Amino acid sequence: MKAKLPFTKKEYQQRVKKVKSIMQQQRIDVMVATDPGNMNWLTGYDGWSFYVHQGVIISLDMEEPIWFGRAMDRNAALLKCFMQRDNLVGYPEKYVQNIDEHPMTWIGENIFQKNGWSGCVIATERDNYYYSAEAHFRLAATLPNANLVNANNLVNWVRGVKSKKEIEYMRIAGSITEKIHRRILDTVSAGIPKSHVVSQIYETAIAGVDGHGGDYPSIVPLLPSGADASASHITWDERPFKRNEATFFEISGCYKRYHAPMSRTIFMGKPPQKFLDAEKALIEAIDAGLAVAKPGNLTADIANAIDSVMLKYGIDRNGARCGYPIGVSYPPDWGERTCSLRSSDLTVLESGMTFHLMPGVWQDDWGMEITESIHITDSGVELLSNFPRKLFIK
Amino acid sequence: MKAKLPFTKKEYQQRVKKVKSIMQQQRIDVMVATDPGNMNWLTGYDGWSFYVHQGVIISLDMEEPIWFGRAMDRNAALLKCFMQRDNLVGYPEKYVQNIDEHPMTWIGENIFQKNGWSGCVIATERDNYYYSAEAHFRLAATLPNANLVNANNLVNWVRGVKSKKEIEYMRIAGSITEKIHRRILDTVSAGIPKSHVVSQIYETAIAGVDGHGGDYPSIVPLLPSGADASASHITWDERPFKRNEATFFEISGCYKRYHAPMSRTIFMGKPPQKFLDAEKALIEAIDAGLAVAKPGNLTADIANAIDSVMLKYGIDRNGARCGYPIGVSYPPDWGERTCSLRSSDLTVLESGMTFHLMPGVWQDDWGMEITESIHITDSGVELLSNFPRKLFIK
Repeated sequence: MKAKLPFTKKEYQQRVKKVKSIMQQQRIDVMVATDPGNMNWLTGYDGWSFYVHQGVIISLDMEEPIWFGRAMDRNAALLKCFMQRDNLVGYPEKYVQNIDEHPMTWIGENIFQKNGWSGCVIATERDNYYYSAEAHFRLAATLPNANLVNANNLVNWVRGVKSKKEIEYMRIAGSITEKIHRRILDTVSAGIPKSHVVSQIYETAIAGVDGHGGDYPSIVPLLPSGADASASHITWDERPFKRNEATFFEISGCYKRYHAPMSRTIFMGKPPQKFLDAEKALIEAIDAGLAVAKPGNLTADIANAIDSVMLKYGIDRNGARCGYPIGVSYPPDWGERTCSLRSSDLTVLESGMTFHLMPGVWQDDWGMEITESIHITDSGVELLSNFPRKLFIK
Repeated sequence: MKAKLPFTKKEYQQRVKKVKSIMQQQRIDVMVATDPGNMNWLTGYDGWSFYVHQGVIISLDMEEPIWFGRAMDRNAALLKCFMQRDNLVGYPEKYVQNIDEHPMTWIGENIFQKNGWSGCVIATERDNYYYSAEAHFRLAATLPNANLVNANNLVNWVRGVKSKKEIEYMRIAGSITEKIHRRILDTVSAGIPKSHVVSQIYETAIAGVDGHGGDYPSIVPLLPSGADASASHITWDERPFKRNEATFFEISGCYKRYHAPMSRTIFMGKPPQKFLDAEKALIEAIDAGLAVAKPGNLTADIANAIDSVMLKYGIDRNGARCGYPIGVSYPPDWGERTCSLRSSDLTVLESGMTFHLMPGVWQDDWGMEITESIHITDSGVELLSNFPRKLFIK
C-alpha cells in the first residue's frame, strides 16, 4: 500500500545521519522539525496537513525519526514516510484546533516524557511558520527540566547541497517553469484579464511536462503591472492588462515539492528608455554573477558582481539581496531561509547548491525582474531553465 | 493610485471598533494581529507577504490600526489598506530572514516603545501560523515591563457574523465552486492522470465566473482515491484514476479571499454496498443538520443531528467534528478556527454566520465526502453552492 517514495530509504537515512552529526556538534539531544519542507526531506512525509500542529522528532538515542501529527493524518504518514509504523504517532482528534487542549501538551507528555527526554537538551525551529509561540509554551510546560534551545534552520542548512536525484527533480521543475513562461507569452495582451492569464499559468504548471505532473508552487504566481510592480507581493484580480505598462511574472514550476523559480518582464507597447537601461543592466549583472558562481567562491562574490554592475548603471537596489537558496518547500515560501546572495554573506559555494538568482529592480512607480534558478556544479554553474533572457515586448 | 477597496472605509472602521470593544472587555490595551485573514479583514491588506513577519496593531489609544511589514511591502499596504500613510510602517530590508536581526526587535523598539506602550497589556495571536515562538521572544525582550497576554482568535470570533457584502463575495465563491465541480465531472475518468484533472480545477477556479476573477484557495484541491481517501490531506501526483475506486474532491472557489468549500465523491464503476449506504446516511444526515441550522440554535444542535443519523446507520466518525466556520482566509487553512460543529460546542447560531458543513466518512481503507457551505439567515439556512447532493457514478 505504501506509495513509491521519491528517494531511496538509504538517502533518507543518510540525511538523518547528517542532521544527527550536527546535533551532536551543537550538543542537542533531541530536535523537533516543524518546517514541512524539513519534515518531507527527513522522512518523505507530504500532505496538506500543516494547518494543524505536526512535526518530526530526531533523537540521538533513536535510529529513526518519529513523525507526529493529527490522528487522521497518520494514514498519510503510513503511505509517505520511510519509517516503521511504530514511529508514526497520531494525537487524538479532540486536540484539533481546540483552544483548551493543545496538541503540544499531548506530544510533550506522550512522546517526550515517555521516551525519557525530560532532562535533555531539546531544540525546536523557533522562527518557523509552523511553530507558534503557543506550541512552544505548551511543549515547555510539560518539560520543566529540559533545556530548550533554538535550532532554527539547522536542517535547512544541511539541505543546502542537493543530491543527484534532487537535482533531477529540480530540472523537471525548471522545464515546467519554461513551459509556463511560454504560455504567458502566448496569452498576455492588453485587455486580457489578469485572472485569465493566471488560470493558464496554473493549468500549465499542474499539467506538468513529459508525463511528470506538476505540484502546487509554494508561492502563488506574482504578476504586478505598472505602479503595482513596486509592490511585488500583490496578487492578481480580474482587471485587464493595459497598454504601455510593464508586468513582471515571478513564477515557479514545482515537481515533488522541488522548485525552480524564474521571472521575466513583458512590456506592452514601446518601453521607455529606463526599462531598456534596466534590461541592459540586469542582463550584464546576471552574466557577471554567473561568471563567479562556482565552487569555492562565496555567496558574497555573486552579490558583489551583480551589485557593481547595477551601480555602474546607476540603479540602486536599496540593499535588497540578489537571491536565496531553493529546494523542497511548502507555502508560504520556496526559499530555504539560510544564506542569502548579499555582500555581507560569506557562505562558501559548493557543488550541488541551488539558488534563485534574482536581482530585481523595484523602484517607486515601476519594477522589473529578470531572474534565473541556478545549480552550482563541479565546474561552474547550470541554469535550471533555458529561456531567452531579455525584456519581452508585445 | 489606491485600488478600490473590497469594502467601504466605514465597514473597516466598524470592524476595528468591534475589536476594540472586546479588547476593552478583556482589559487589553494593544493587540497585534498576525493572521493574514485578520489583517485583511481589519485593514484591507492583501498580498503574498506573510512569509516574512508582519502584522496589524490595534491600540485603544489610537483611532486607526498600524500596519507593519517589510519595507518593500509597504508599497502594497499603500495600495490596499484603508489607513493613512503614517500608519503604514516598513522595517528595513536587512531584517528580512536574517537570523541575527529579527523584525520583531525592530517593531518592539520602533513602534511599541515609541508609542509609550512599554508598560501596557499587550495581546498577540499566540497560536497563529504567522506568530512564531521566536517572534514572541524578540518582541517580549523589548518590552520587559509589559504584560503579554494571549488573544488567539479574538479577531476571528468577531469575524464570525458576516456583513451583506461579505456574503455577496461568498456567494460568488460558491458559484466558482459549482463551476469547478461541473468541470471535475466532465474531466474525470479512469486512465486520466490526477495532475490533469487538478490543472482543470485550477484553470476553472482562477478563471472565475461572470467577470469575477477567482483567487487562490487557502487549501489546494484534495482528491484522494481508494485507500488513499483514508488519508484525506494527501495531495495529487501524475498517477491515473482507476476503475472501481472512489475519489472525493474537496475544493473551494475563492473570491477576494472569501471561500465556499464543497466536497463531492465520484465512484468509477459499480460502487459496493458500503458506499451506497454511506451516501444514504450522509444525505439524510446533512438534511437533519440543515433542518436545525437556524438562529438561536447551537453549533452542537447541528452536530448532534448529524451524528445521530450517522450512528443510526452504524457509521462511526471517530469523534471528528462535522464542520467549522469559514470566511476570509489565507493558506494553510480556510477555516476560522473558532467554534466547531461538534456536540461539545455550545456556540449560539446567529444570522450571518457561515460554515462548511462537512460530515466526512473516513474509514481505514476508504473515504467519502459530501459537504455543503452554508449561511445562517434570519429564517434558516442558505446554501452557498447549488449542486446535486449525491454520490456520482461514472
